[in-house]
This record gives sequence, structure tokens and C-alpha cells, in this order.
Amino acid sequence: MSSGQGMTRRELIKGAAAGTVVASGALSGCAPTAPSDLPEKWDEEADVVVVGLGAAGAAAAIEASRAGAKVIVLEKAPVSGGSTVLCGGLLYMGGGTPLQKATGFEDSTENMYDYMLAAAGAGADPEMIRIYCDNSLSLYDWLVELGVPFKESYLPGKWAAVPTEDGLAYSGNESQAHFKAVAKPVPRGHHVEGPGETGSVLWPFLKAGVEAAGAEIIHEAPVQQLVVNPEGRVVGVVADVDGIDEYYKANKGVILCAGGFAANKKMVARHCPSFLRSEFQVGTSGDDGSGIRMGQGAGGDVQMMGDPFGYSAIYEFGQALVKGVLLDDRGRRFVGEDNYGTWVGKLLLRDHPVSYLIVDQAIWDEIHEAAKKALTVTAQADSIAELAQAANINQDVMENTIDFYNEHAARSEDPTFSKNAHYVVPLENGPFYALSYPAAGVGFFTTGGLRINGKAEALDPFGETVPGLYAAGRNAFAVTAEQYPGSGVSVCEGLTFGRIAGKAAAAMEAWS
Amino acid sequence: MSSGQGMTRRELIKGAAAGTVVASGALSGCAPTAPSDLPEKWDEEADVVVVGLGAAGAAAAIEASRAGAKVIVLEKAPVSGGSTVLCGGLLYMGGGTPLQKATGFEDSTENMYDYMLAAAGAGADPEMIRIYCDNSLSLYDWLVELGVPFKESYLPGKWAAVPTEDGLAYSGNESQAHFKAVAKPVPRGHHVEGPGETGSVLWPFLKAGVEAAGAEIIHEAPVQQLVVNPEGRVVGVVADVDGIDEYYKANKGVILCAGGFAANKKMVARHCPSFLRSEFQVGTSGDDGSGIRMGQGAGGDVQMMGDPFGYSAIYEFGQALVKGVLLDDRGRRFVGEDNYGTWVGKLLLRDHPVSYLIVDQAIWDEIHEAAKKALTVTAQADSIAELAQAANINQDVMENTIDFYNEHAARSEDPTFSKNAHYVVPLENGPFYALSYPAAGVGFFTTGGLRINGKAEALDPFGETVPGLYAAGRNAFAVTAEQYPGSGVSVCEGLTFGRIAGKAAAAMEAWS
Repeated sequence: MSSGQGMTRRELIKGAAAGTVVASGALSGCAPTAPSDLPEKWDEEADVVVVGLGAAGAAAAIEASRAGAKVIVLEKAPVSGGSTVLCGGLLYMGGGTPLQKATGFEDSTENMYDYMLAAAGAGADPEMIRIYCDNSLSLYDWLVELGVPFKESYLPGKWAAVPTEDGLAYSGNESQAHFKAVAKPVPRGHHVEGPGETGSVLWPFLKAGVEAAGAEIIHEAPVQQLVVNPEGRVVGVVADVDGIDEYYKANKGVILCAGGFAANKKMVARHCPSFLRSEFQVGTSGDDGSGIRMGQGAGGDVQMMGDPFGYSAIYEFGQALVKGVLLDDRGRRFVGEDNYGTWVGKLLLRDHPVSYLIVDQAIWDEIHEAAKKALTVTAQADSIAELAQAANINQDVMENTIDFYNEHAARSEDPTFSKNAHYVVPLENGPFYALSYPAAGVGFFTTGGLRINGKAEALDPFGETVPGLYAAGRNAFAVTAEQYPGSGVSVCEGLTFGRIAGKAAAAMEAWS
Repeated sequence: MSSGQGMTRRELIKGAAAGTVVASGALSGCAPTAPSDLPEKWDEEADVVVVGLGAAGAAAAIEASRAGAKVIVLEKAPVSGGSTVLCGGLLYMGGGTPLQKATGFEDSTENMYDYMLAAAGAGADPEMIRIYCDNSLSLYDWLVELGVPFKESYLPGKWAAVPTEDGLAYSGNESQAHFKAVAKPVPRGHHVEGPGETGSVLWPFLKAGVEAAGAEIIHEAPVQQLVVNPEGRVVGVVADVDGIDEYYKANKGVILCAGGFAANKKMVARHCPSFLRSEFQVGTSGDDGSGIRMGQGAGGDVQMMGDPFGYSAIYEFGQALVKGVLLDDRGRRFVGEDNYGTWVGKLLLRDHPVSYLIVDQAIWDEIHEAAKKALTVTAQADSIAELAQAANINQDVMENTIDFYNEHAARSEDPTFSKNAHYVVPLENGPFYALSYPAAGVGFFTTGGLRINGKAEALDPFGETVPGLYAAGRNAFAVTAEQYPGSGVSVCEGLTFGRIAGKAAAAMEAWS
């Protein structure tokens, strides 16, 4: 996956062209409400009910079924896969996976932990990151056992989405000076084999795993309510099946894996309004926050609702573009162009909604023709002064910025942002190009959600568990805090905590 | 008030010296838990129970009592006033108040609304801002009737805290180019009469109003639980009085006015972790989020928990400082120095934790001796180059920044950030000073909280009211969204929605 969830590379950068990616047909009207009391009669019965069938739901269903539980999975869309099927097929794993070893990289769980803790920034939860890292080697094996293919090859460079069939690539900020100081840089972006975006390759293996494990999958069954018994335990769900309320009993637990809330503009406005500037939700129309809200309704707390993943990647259209200079509409630089796209994305959304990547003819010549067609050239001119006028950027500021950049770039230095030396070259020979790089084009999905503990149990605002309720994937907050550590974390969060939830729910004592 | 809540000006800028301001003595251990069921016996009975006695609680108690309700106010501290008593005594009111008129300013409710809606930024709720503005003239009269004094004088300049006895000042971004375009600039910072910070002048009038209205105030009675009846209605509270659980019945409603969560580091880490970088909580140790969490526990949703108020004001120590140039540790400017301090504060916390205000001798000479003592001079040198070295700022970047600034400042222009012309002068004659301006010194309090509607009724995640539950002040989200419109908004939010809550609760039908 390019960025934790799916998008084509074209969509990643082109706000104008992009919109909500709808994975499935029209959904049944999904209007979740407060919990239901016990019904007079249950329509179906299971040990574990899983709400939503993407990566997290699949992992939960597989593990719960393998542990002997009877599992029913309710998916509101006519097809399963959620955002996972749309993703780029990148999975952020490490600690010394067979693929890392085969391609000559030495990693350790501790080294991975050190990077992720630092990269997640303020608010990172050491316990959750520890669990993510400790489970990473076994997650790789688990995927391989399910048949998920990874090619034993390493793709040099920096990739939020791997455009080739290669198996391993850098997908985060591991090589940035700031993080090199705390952990040895190692690539951890494991790319499911296949050309480019391979969420569609990954997904069938997960779905087949659910079926092989014996879980029952019911499509077009949007869950509208949790059922809570008089003792406050979540004991089932109500799904709308063909317009009729069907009651599904969960003897052991309900696992919410119903995605984030990026498709729900009212929730975005209430929790993270800067992201209203994005016109590019990454995910499906099913990411309506219904799972999060149902979990809240049963007593669950939420966490980090204000800090979504926002992604804008310069290098998606060719690594040469990292040699460009990113300016806001005043002509100021505001970030090192080689930073991971989530750092760039948030700055665009919050502070620099109108921005441009400035490149010279030499850089432009390095870009593939197909990529050129996907870029928006706002202006082209023979000099920086003319380019500023044509793009409506303040000419004095822009000339000063470029002159200063060029002066130091002649020595491969970037004193302002410490961009990696091999990307630092003067922009000297025109024509020059101003490529549009708007906040509207920042791809986003939400990473906040229900507050869970290391067992994927939902917690209430007082730190107590909500009995019978689990959550994973974008329905929950897990490891991505102030920053997103690297492409492929989101799906792996879903898989890791989905697996944990499935095992934990299956091991619960039945309430009836 | 300096910033919506209380702090001395010294504290405002000095991270090192600042810490949590504790308004009250040691609080009883406050560990809120999930709601209680109905008790066998109630210890006390009222129509309306108000939790917390600051501005919001006082307003609620006054209005509910005046409407004929029997009101009990439970305050966990041994003294009342919360953050309000510590605040600077600035109140953000407008629409053509008698004080605005007397000092020669023409405002209208519509003009105020236009400014506030724009200034609150993304996520601003037009309905709530409308209510705030529509109630502003009557709020002014209400305060004057309570005896709150305002001097009929206008203090020119830009003030987050009014250091004089003057009654009216600009306290927001009204004169910034961006906002001038949408609303006529008018000062709306109404300063309670008295020298400098006058929250301590304001508070006794509010408290006397509560007593005069007939409400009963009980101190050292931390509320630990809401009581919810089998139908899901909030019908009372449990307070810990001298170690004993006392049950207070609320026949009509419970109004949560127990403050924000800035004093609760775990909640800050879970919702707005960038603010962990601040070492300066503005408010009291009672801002532990207990009211918000109890409201959640009864079914309430939360809103905007990720976007607190973070304030750092250059001009607090003298307006001349706005003529300085604010640089991060690389030597880059990142904001116009005349921006409202909340814009500066958030940028410091998120992206520029180590920053310096650069001034020359001429500016330094304009600063009062007392203010000089409160500033931290990181470095002093005869040239910008030497200053950069002494302060460990990148010399090339800093020289380029200052040279470019000076070149345009000679024409009173700031093409980079459009700082107001009267603040734009070249920094030419040394010695030069680098004044420390760290993220650690950003004063912050939280503005997110329970989601309420225009009647101050708590809403659940599905948009339904939580029966019997109201919230106001920093216990609730109201009008401050992505940005904070101006100093004095927070206390007025508390007063406005506290009044609304008090009236609404008193008008409710009793449940028993």
C-alpha cells in the first residue's frame, strides 16, 4: 500500500482528480444508534461476532475460528475487503524477517521498536508499539502461511508505494538524520508480490483464510446497534439485513473492525477539521465512523481523534522530484522535500494549503512521460522571476528562497532543512516548472478511534474494559500517534490487533 | 484575562519559570468512575446540581436559581473560582456594547459573527458561534447588573492581557489582513476594571451572584460519579464528602462545569500529545478531565479534543517586541510576529519547539526594565553572525533571513508574512539579542470537551441528547475550533453556555 491504505499513485498527488474511493456498491443506509437491550429472541448465535471484513476483521475471524470459536462476520458492503483491498500492498514489518535477511538487511525487534517509538512522535504508546513489534516476525510467517507472496528483492530509493514487483523498500523516515540517531535504518516496507499496488493481491489470501478457518461471512449486513445486557456486557449486535433487524448473539465477544471515519464529514469537522481541506479520502464510503460511535455508545472511550494520517508524496511520480523545492504560495520552503509524505501532508493541511513544487528542466526530463501527464503544471517560465509571476507566488520571497537554496546546493548542502545530500542540486537551467501541490490533494484516512488495551479490549474513559467488546484496525487507536511511522503500518496494526482480539475473544468465558 | 484563562504575564512567556498554577489547596483524591445506579436513599435533593464552580458553574447556578430551581453547586476545591479567578479579566464581547459605544467603536452582532466564524477556522460551528454572538450584548448587561466594573477607556495596541486599568482593547486577530477582509476590525476585549490581571476582581461578583440567587455551594465535594436511572437519564451525582459517598438527587438536571483536562497528562497524551511539550498549564490542578469523562460515561460524545488553546505572546512584555523577528533554531521565520499568540503557540508546539525572538538595541531599549528581567536572553552579540553562533542557530540561514527582512523592512514591507507595517523596521544596529521563546513556555488549556447542542445539552455519538445532562465551559466544546478567536472567549463561552444550561435545566420537567 502506498500509504497505509489504498490509492493509485495518480490519485495520491492529484487533488483535482481525486475523490472518495468507493470500494463497494451503494451501502444500505447505515445509521448506528445507541445500544439495544436484550431481544426477546436471537436470530443467530455465535461465540464471536466480527463487525467489518477488512484486514482487521479477517485477522480476528481467522484467529478466533482457529481457536475453536464459532465466528460470524458481518460486512455492510456487498463485497468484503474494505480499504485493504484498495491498498498498495505494503506491510510495515521487521525485526529480522526472512525477507529482510534474504535481501541483506539486519534488523532486530529492539531496533524496530526504537524507530517506531521515535517516529510515532508525541503521544506514542510504548506498550502498544512493543506489542506491534513483538508480533511482527510472527505476522510475517502467518501471512506467508496464508499464501501471501513476497519477492526476495529490494528496491532502492524511498517509496510510499512500490511501483515494481519488488518485495522490500524503505517506506518511512528511517534514513532521516533525526531517526538515524536512535535506530539503525532498515527497510521495513514489505510489498506483496505483484506489479505496483497489490492490496488486491493481498486481500484474497486473507479472505480465503477466513473461509478456510470456518468463519461464516454475511455480506450486506450493516450493524446498526450493539446489544448490551443489564450488567453492561456487550452480548451481540443488531444488523440490518434487507431492511429487517436481525439479532446476532455473541456468547464470548464482539470485535469491531468497521474502519475509520474519514468518509464522515461531520465527524471530521468535529474531531479534525483541518482535514476538511482534503478532497481525497483514502478508503471506502464505509469509513463512516459507525463502528467507533457504536463502541462509544457501549461505553468506550476514544483516542487521538484529532490527528489523522494525511499524505502527500513528492516522490510518487519519480524520485527525481525530491530534488525539487517545495514552496508555499508566498515562496517559502516549509519542510525538507525528502520527508515522509505524512509530515508534508499535515503541514499542507494545517498551514500551507496552496503549495508548489519547483523543478528545473533537468529534473523534469527525468520524469516519465506518464507521470508528467498526471502532474498539474501551474506555470512554466524561463526564469524564477517569471515563474513566480506566472504562478502568483511572491517574487521577492521566491527568488530569495531559490537563490539561497542554489548557493548551498552547489555544495550539496541544505542548511535550512538538511535534505539528504543526493537530492540537493541547484535549480539552475530553465525552463522552470511550478507543479501544483495543494492541500486538497492530501490523501487522508483516520488513525484515531476507540481506546483499546494490549489485548484489543475496548476501554471506557476510566480505563476499565467494556466487557465483551474488542476493536482493531481503524476502528481503534493503536500505534500511530502524532506522526505515522511509515507506509504499511495501518494494515499491520489491523492485522496485529485483529489477531490479538480474535484470540482474546475466543478465550473469553461465555456469558450464557 | 491574558489568554482566556489566568496567568501572570511573566508566566506567559517564561516556560522555565512556569508550571501548573494551582488555584486551590490539595484536592481530595478525584477518581471518577462509571455511572452509579440509583441509590437506596438520597442524601440531598435539588432541582439542578451544578458540578464545579468557575465562570460556567456560576452562570448556570445563577440562571437556574433565578428561574426558581433549587440549586446545589458542588465544588471539589476548598475555594471556588477555578481558572476564572486566575484569569486576566478579559471578556470577549461585542455587537455594540455600551463600552464599545462609549469608547467610539461601532460594532454589530453580524460583524462580530463574521469575524468569529472566520477566526475560529476549520470546524467552526456556525450555530454555536451565532448563539455566542446573539447573547453577547445581554451578557454584558448581565455582568454589569452583577456589579462587574468596566472603565470607559480604550487601550490602543494589541493585548492578550491588558496591563492597565483600561476597559477595552484588541485581543484577537481582528486587524490582520485576512480578517479585515471579512469583518470590520473592532476591539472586543472587555477588561474588568482594575490593574492588569483582574480575574480576581471578576470572580467575587460572580460568586456573590450565585449566593444572592439562592444557590447552595458545597466546597471540598468532588463529584466522582453521575447517577443514571434505568431509563438512561442522569438523575443525580455521587460526591466524596470527607471520604463518604454522598448522593445528590437532581430532579431536573445535572450541569457539568468542571473544567478541562490540561492538568491530566494521560488525557493530554491520548488526545493532543503535541501539548506535552508545554510545561505551562494555564488553569488549576482541578482541570483533570473528570467532568468530561463522567459525561462520556453517561453516554456523552466528545468533540475537538485534539486541538487545545496554546498561547505564546511576543507582545506581552512590551509592544516593541512585535518589531522583533521570530526564528526557529535553524534561523527560519515561520509566522508573522503580530499574529495572535494562539497561532504562534500551536506552531511552536507542533513544529518549532526551540525558537528565538531576535531584537536589536533600539527595540531592547523600548522594553521596561521589569520586563527585561522576565525575559531570557539566550545570547547577545554585536552582529547577526555572532549572535547566530552564540545562540547555536544556523548562521547562513539566519543571516539570509535577517538580511532579506531588513531589505524590505527599510520600506516597511514584509513580503514573507505581511506583518503590519508599523511593526516592520530593519534590525540594523547592535548589539542584537536572541530571546528564548520555547514551546515549553506555551501556555495551554483545553478547549475540547463534551459535545453539546445550542441548549447546552450533552449529545451522544448519534446526535441524541443524554437526558438530564448539560455541560458548559471547558467541560464542553462550544465555539473555539481550529483556532481561538481572541482572548476572553473561553470565560465568555463558559458564561454564555452556563447561562443557557441553567435556564434550560430549570425549565426541564422533573423526573420524579
